Amino acid sequence: MSITLEQAQAAVQAAHQKSIEMGVKMNIAVVDAGANLTAFIRMDDAWLGSLDISIKKAKTARFFDMPTGAIGGLSQPGGSLYNIEHSNGGLITFPGGIPIKDAQGKVIGAIGVSGSTVEDDHAVAEAGVQALAGR
Amino acid sequence: MSITLEQAQAAVQAAHQKSIEMGVKMNIAVVDAGANLTAFIRMDDAWLGSLDISIKKAKTARFFDMPTGAIGGLSQPGGSLYNIEHSNGGLITFPGGIPIKDAQGKVIGAIGVSGSTVEDDHAVAEAGVQALAGR
Amino acid sequence: MSITLEQAQAAVQAAHQKSIEMGVKMNIAVVDAGANLTAFIRMDDAWLGSLDISIKKAKTARFFDMPTGAIGGLSQPGGSLYNIEHSNGGLITFPGGIPIKDAQGKVIGAIGVSGSTVEDDHAVAEAGVQALAGR
Amino acid sequence: MSITLEQAQAAVQAAHQKSIEMGVKMNIAVVDAGANLTAFIRMDDAWLGSLDISIKKAKTARFFDMPTGAIGGLSQPGGSLYNIEHSNGGLITFPGGIPIKDAQGKVIGAIGVSGSTVEDDHAVAEAGVQALAGR
Repeated sequence: MSITLEQAQAAVQAAHQKSIEMGVKMNIAVVDAGANLTAFIRMDDAWLGSLDISIKKAKTARFFDMPTGAIGGLSQPGGSLYNIEHSNGGLITFPGGIPIKDAQGKVIGAIGVSGSTVEDDHAVAEAGVQALAGR
Repeated sequence: MSITLEQAQAAVQAAHQKSIEMGVKMNIAVVDAGANLTAFIRMDDAWLGSLDISIKKAKTARFFDMPTGAIGGLSQPGGSLYNIEHSNGGLITFPGGIPIKDAQGKVIGAIGVSGSTVEDDHAVAEAGVQALAGR
Repeated sequence: MSITLEQAQAAVQAAHQKSIEMGVKMNIAVVDAGANLTAFIRMDDAWLGSLDISIKKAKTARFFDMPTGAIGGLSQPGGSLYNIEHSNGGLITFPGGIPIKDAQGKVIGAIGVSGSTVEDDHAVAEAGVQALAGR
Repeated sequence: MSITLEQAQAAVQAAHQKSIEMGVKMNIAVVDAGANLTAFIRMDDAWLGSLDISIKKAKTARFFDMPTGAIGGLSQPGGSLYNIEHSNGGLITFPGGIPIKDAQGKVIGAIGVSGSTVEDDHAVAEAGVQALAGR
């Protein structure tokens, strides 16, 4: 099973709404179970450089089925996955990417957010994930 | 001036609605005046290979401010722009990409559609453009 | 549903056996429903340049759910999909790539073969597909 | 001399068997003396992101004729090969890639494994190497 467009748009919309509430300008990307882009928006005046980062965060979260920040904790100098970022055409391993699971806990896609601090990015991504909880 | 997210989403929504009416499964991308992705959706079960093509069509239409098919007419063997597709990380020059203009005729972005015949792709892209006419 | 490793290996083995019978040296690649490489072999002394081509053929067949040669028929100069090969990191659109379907006709992956004439490549790919027929 | 397909498949099969015994889902790649992919499998439900990593580990081990982890020890900040990962289209320098040698100790290829912890990845790669010892 993979995320549907309807689910992906619901996640994007919730993350967009959260961004407006927080007063931040985000790029928001959702990928499906195959790590392929399914829905994306870039808010007006969001950082241009965050476009690619948001998509790479979503892909990274699906590539390894864990939040991007968890990978970043292992890819530091001396860590077991040092410089894993060089794989797959470039990973982003700081917070802002989170897997999306179905009711049975199976990963069906992921969301990636970029445009503010990593804490803000993660909070907005989390709002996208929560929008699908219980569906 | 560049297309706003609100405008881009209106174009995507109109193109999506047109796709449903036509019974086709499309990838739909809108880029802004800087040729940067602004809004994107991939319909359930749309061709995987059309994801990249839809984005390249939108970018190509904005890169040269003309419909992608018009460029394709010039890039044929013997044509004045032969193999221009090798530039810019890969262009797509068959129909399905159309510039989006403001009320004064200035290009503010472009839409790219891929997932069916080039005639269908162009018709869906045109529906997206029309959604913004008069705004 | 996506092809399993067991199915992918059965397809590769059948294609390998066919290659031996034909006296050709092939690169044989199978991708899953997400167009991700699932099984691959390169026969001793097969053309080095055919490695990448076999993988691109398998991906291309899955990207558009049709034999690669069918796309090549449309991507010729003057054709409706002229130069589509510039998308998706490079497509290969001559024969040798074929989608793999389940018993219900749904595409679950694809096989790509390269190393001889396109007629030979296609025949070997077809042997791989047939190995899964009725399973 | 380079690894034969028969040898590469024996290494992959042994690594696959070891993965099953360990209860891990791996991507397993073998490259030849020219660092070209010779045999590859991806186990069902293995991490998508590990596909590319397994191939890069095998290539990296052959590029420098040493286990990938040994290179990672030198590529840390302040190390003599700091950020060598930027070369060759992306290296992976944490454990899981091991050179394969013939009876005379000459490197004839390499195996790369990814899908679990780096300790597990290395153990599975080692099982692949051992399958060819004494041949």
